[in-house]
Amino acid sequence: MTDTPLAIGIDFGGTSIKVGVIYRGNMIDSAPPIATQEYDGPQELIATMVRVIEGLRESHPGIKAIGVGMPGFVDYEQGLVFNLTNVRGWVNIPLKKLLHDATLLPTVVENDANCMAYAEWKRGAGRGLKHIVALTMGTGVGGGIIANGQMIRGACYGAGELGQTSIDFQGRVGAYGNKGALEDYVGNNEIAADARNFYESKGVFKTITECSPASLASAASNGDAIALEIWDGIAEKLATTIMNCCWLLNPQAVIIGGGVAKAGDLLFAPLQKHLFSQLSGPFKDHLSLLPARFGAEAGMIGAAALALEEAGFSIE
Amino acid sequence: MTDTPLAIGIDFGGTSIKVGVIYRGNMIDSAPPIATQEYDGPQELIATMVRVIEGLRESHPGIKAIGVGMPGFVDYEQGLVFNLTNVRGWVNIPLKKLLHDATLLPTVVENDANCMAYAEWKRGAGRGLKHIVALTMGTGVGGGIIANGQMIRGACYGAGELGQTSIDFQGRVGAYGNKGALEDYVGNNEIAADARNFYESKGVFKTITECSPASLASAASNGDAIALEIWDGIAEKLATTIMNCCWLLNPQAVIIGGGVAKAGDLLFAPLQKHLFSQLSGPFKDHLSLLPARFGAEAGMIGAAALALEEAGFSIE
Repeated sequence: MTDTPLAIGIDFGGTSIKVGVIYRGNMIDSAPPIATQEYDGPQELIATMVRVIEGLRESHPGIKAIGVGMPGFVDYEQGLVFNLTNVRGWVNIPLKKLLHDATLLPTVVENDANCMAYAEWKRGAGRGLKHIVALTMGTGVGGGIIANGQMIRGACYGAGELGQTSIDFQGRVGAYGNKGALEDYVGNNEIAADARNFYESKGVFKTITECSPASLASAASNGDAIALEIWDGIAEKLATTIMNCCWLLNPQAVIIGGGVAKAGDLLFAPLQKHLFSQLSGPFKDHLSLLPARFGAEAGMIGAAALALEEAGFSIE
Repeated sequence: MTDTPLAIGIDFGGTSIKVGVIYRGNMIDSAPPIATQEYDGPQELIATMVRVIEGLRESHPGIKAIGVGMPGFVDYEQGLVFNLTNVRGWVNIPLKKLLHDATLLPTVVENDANCMAYAEWKRGAGRGLKHIVALTMGTGVGGGIIANGQMIRGACYGAGELGQTSIDFQGRVGAYGNKGALEDYVGNNEIAADARNFYESKGVFKTITECSPASLASAASNGDAIALEIWDGIAEKLATTIMNCCWLLNPQAVIIGGGVAKAGDLLFAPLQKHLFSQLSGPFKDHLSLLPARFGAEAGMIGAAALALEEAGFSIE
């Protein structure tokens, strides 16, 4: 068996683009982040990405592939970025072709939540499994699905949007007209806004900052009964979407990452309670509810692993 | 290319067991149904099934495989029926082995909703597609999922249970403690009970029979405004679960069969409206909402197709 080669993993964010050198699920080197908004358009920004990649290749001549995780809708086969809502000029950009033409390295471009799911599947909490649902909870709620040992992308690469699924058919109206979208209850900002209202209903007045998931986790850890109740409510809503995924896909593991998951047992304990009380025996017996192994580097690690596999390298 | 062989398709129901001879998606012969409840246990019932199969083989010596659709949880690989709640004695019955040992034909045993999905995929409305969600609506709501051109069965063959997924995290408590299960709103009996209450709230008094899905379809066809409103409500709830499947799996087609689907446009028109108003552009552009091709024979046709494919025959 030959050794797993190195790959470039890129986490393309609306604020900064992180470029790392990945070796077997570890970032062994990285370049200073690229400030996304300082560039006038894709051409200039991609030229900078290429310069950064070439710089890392000088130090690491063994790099064999490039994987990019994008915060938006991507045609995975073509490596085409349809549209980035918060980065100007990014409409129908053939990023895979442009990076490949400039570097001559095999390149993949994938949705960032799918990259996170891939990282957990190949290198993290879901290693060796065939049926996984992964979520990443932050400003939005993203996800990725592995079934039958394959990434599920669907008809137009849109699969895995757990945050857009409904928990209430008469609920809040979301970005796409979808009623009761999970993201509209357990996204960072929605958690904070709902928490502030809940405190207020109990006669306690808090700022939005004091109601961030991190602050709510501190408060609950210090025994704040209202904060504990808020975490139970977050868990109840999250459990509904996860339960739906379980009845639909019967996964071996549900893996949760992102900022909100940092609350740890404050989230996972009530989540397990709400989830397991709504599934039949066989579903529960085969299911593990797991925190993600990777944090901020998940996207880079997953993109790199995916790029190597697509290029025909074994990454075991 | 050799011709597709014949197969036995069996629809195992709580009331009757239907055994047919299937050729390329058509039932070309069948035996009189077996009355399920007249048998004391699995042994006697399986012996009768074998006699019926052997009778059909005498007339059709080209039969090469047996497929059975079961109304419950099945270990597909082992062909083991875990439990039938409404047929006595059916706990951990190795039906695949028993039928194979008695007939020496390759045999598969599969959940009946998965068989229906398989029929629509291989022979029906979803032919040639790779990403399908299929539902069958009757007393319960069952389903089957095809993704990446494969049936999705999950960790313990439980996948595809659309009827158990939630449309309301604070909704009715279902059979497994699951809150807001779709089936508890749009199963036959729940439709009738809710419709009777809805009529009553409008000062109109109906019997449960007058509120069956078939009666509601007649009433709506005859311009009954209350019945039309009821169908809109059924469609709204059903759309929520289908929308969730779309955001999760991004299918090319959602295929709906079973008794409730016989309402046709009375269901499909409001369903399309509620569904398409809650999805983003690319999801809608790649999606067809389709009535099932097959009716009561779907399970037999799907089981037969699956049995032939598993036995290595091409069924194209």
